[in-house]
Amino acid sequence: MKKNICLIVAYDGTDFHGFQRQTNASSIQWHLEQGLSQIFSSPITVYGAARTDAGVHARGQVVNFYGEGTIPVEKIPYAMKGYLPLQIAVLSAREMPEHFSVRHDNVGKHYRYTVVNSRIHDPFRLRYAWFIRNALDLDAMRQGAEILLGTHDFSAFEGKNTTPMNPVKTMYAVLVEKEGAIVHIDVLGDGFLYHMVRNIAGGLVDLGLHRLTPVRFREILESRDRNQLGATAPAQGLCLEEVFYDERRLHQCLDDLRAGHWLAR
Amino acid sequence: MKKNICLIVAYDGTDFHGFQRQTNASSIQWHLEQGLSQIFSSPITVYGAARTDAGVHARGQVVNFYGEGTIPVEKIPYAMKGYLPLQIAVLSAREMPEHFSVRHDNVGKHYRYTVVNSRIHDPFRLRYAWFIRNALDLDAMRQGAEILLGTHDFSAFEGKNTTPMNPVKTMYAVLVEKEGAIVHIDVLGDGFLYHMVRNIAGGLVDLGLHRLTPVRFREILESRDRNQLGATAPAQGLCLEEVFYDERRLHQCLDDLRAGHWLAR
Repeated sequence: MKKNICLIVAYDGTDFHGFQRQTNASSIQWHLEQGLSQIFSSPITVYGAARTDAGVHARGQVVNFYGEGTIPVEKIPYAMKGYLPLQIAVLSAREMPEHFSVRHDNVGKHYRYTVVNSRIHDPFRLRYAWFIRNALDLDAMRQGAEILLGTHDFSAFEGKNTTPMNPVKTMYAVLVEKEGAIVHIDVLGDGFLYHMVRNIAGGLVDLGLHRLTPVRFREILESRDRNQLGATAPAQGLCLEEVFYDERRLHQCLDDLRAGHWLAR
Repeated sequence: MKKNICLIVAYDGTDFHGFQRQTNASSIQWHLEQGLSQIFSSPITVYGAARTDAGVHARGQVVNFYGEGTIPVEKIPYAMKGYLPLQIAVLSAREMPEHFSVRHDNVGKHYRYTVVNSRIHDPFRLRYAWFIRNALDLDAMRQGAEILLGTHDFSAFEGKNTTPMNPVKTMYAVLVEKEGAIVHIDVLGDGFLYHMVRNIAGGLVDLGLHRLTPVRFREILESRDRNQLGATAPAQGLCLEEVFYDERRLHQCLDDLRAGHWLAR
């Protein structure tokens, strides 16, 4: 009898071509499938909660797969260490009900986009942040964040040339916080279009640099036209922090974020 | 008239063969000298406060050099951005009295060694920490730290095959602090032998794993014999945090460290 097993996975995405398996390119999905196929001695297909792009990181990606084997589920994270590159770590494993899907059963996701706002860059954050040299106006960014809150058609924030999906999403929180030179943009919503968080980050940075006014930002959102918005923020600043399967945990995270209980990582 | 100019420099040491210029190897010193020689249109020699090893990082390395040019001193950090790899950043520049030496005039240095103590490693700290899988006994490590405090002949903690130097050094603080899976070993002293902090970290980890008792650790220190101690901790966990040229700043840092005012970075 195959078990439906769910893993929480962290990765430094710098050296991978994104989550999704591709021909001739090293992906997170491919590495997980290779390792699990060894452990379960049969071909395993892994399903991911989010398809992170090339260069995007995750502290809390969630995947599931069906496997039949003798290994106790809780030992999978340690067994996987032997098969994964050091940039990928399986943090935990848990058996779930037969029909549980990481993709369809989640109630929201938390992404964090990190900007370093300083005239001199920080060599230790090269792989994990977008460097913006000119001073960002945090108030302007927060006005933009406020505009995005709630339920909207986010077509203007969708990546180009993508498979169409329902563009109506609800943002439960869009927060801009600063500690020293580091600006975190935390976005928590029920779902995200392709490139959506990076387009939000790009738009908020344009607001912070006064390349865009809040009035214009609202017009762009309402236009539902992707060509109105500026450039997509670079991949290395983005991290999938958590995927929620439980309203209580989602609300706890919202409370923590709103109370400023976040650490510059 | 040449000015004596002092720079504070940060670097991610992963991709360099240490601070010191070497034949056929990329060093921090070489990169700084190349950039400064361009800016000052004449060959510049850079002197460093500390010779960090290959793979060791710095948030506060201090260097000085003599240069004559039209560039205002405070613009040097921005000008250097055009010549340095992104892993090296000049944080600030200041003119100093003619005979000031970063190497001879410092009153102490602060190094931090970072350990991640967890059965599953953290992909985001690969470049900046030593992973220890088995649980560390922090009390045992702190007993060892206590033994190192004060003035001792640290020959037992010196790297092998090095140029002889005075092995008597004073440690003002050796602190072991834990936050989550991260264990920081902060060492602040008036001077350090080659490999000394990495040997201290290696010794304290051996204490934390009960491979060594505090009694034996004290015997090793007193033996002044390098062959008594276990392995040197790996380079990537070490960071030169600050070099002090002023007793007041040194005591402020000691107070901050003792009060636990440090953040897991």
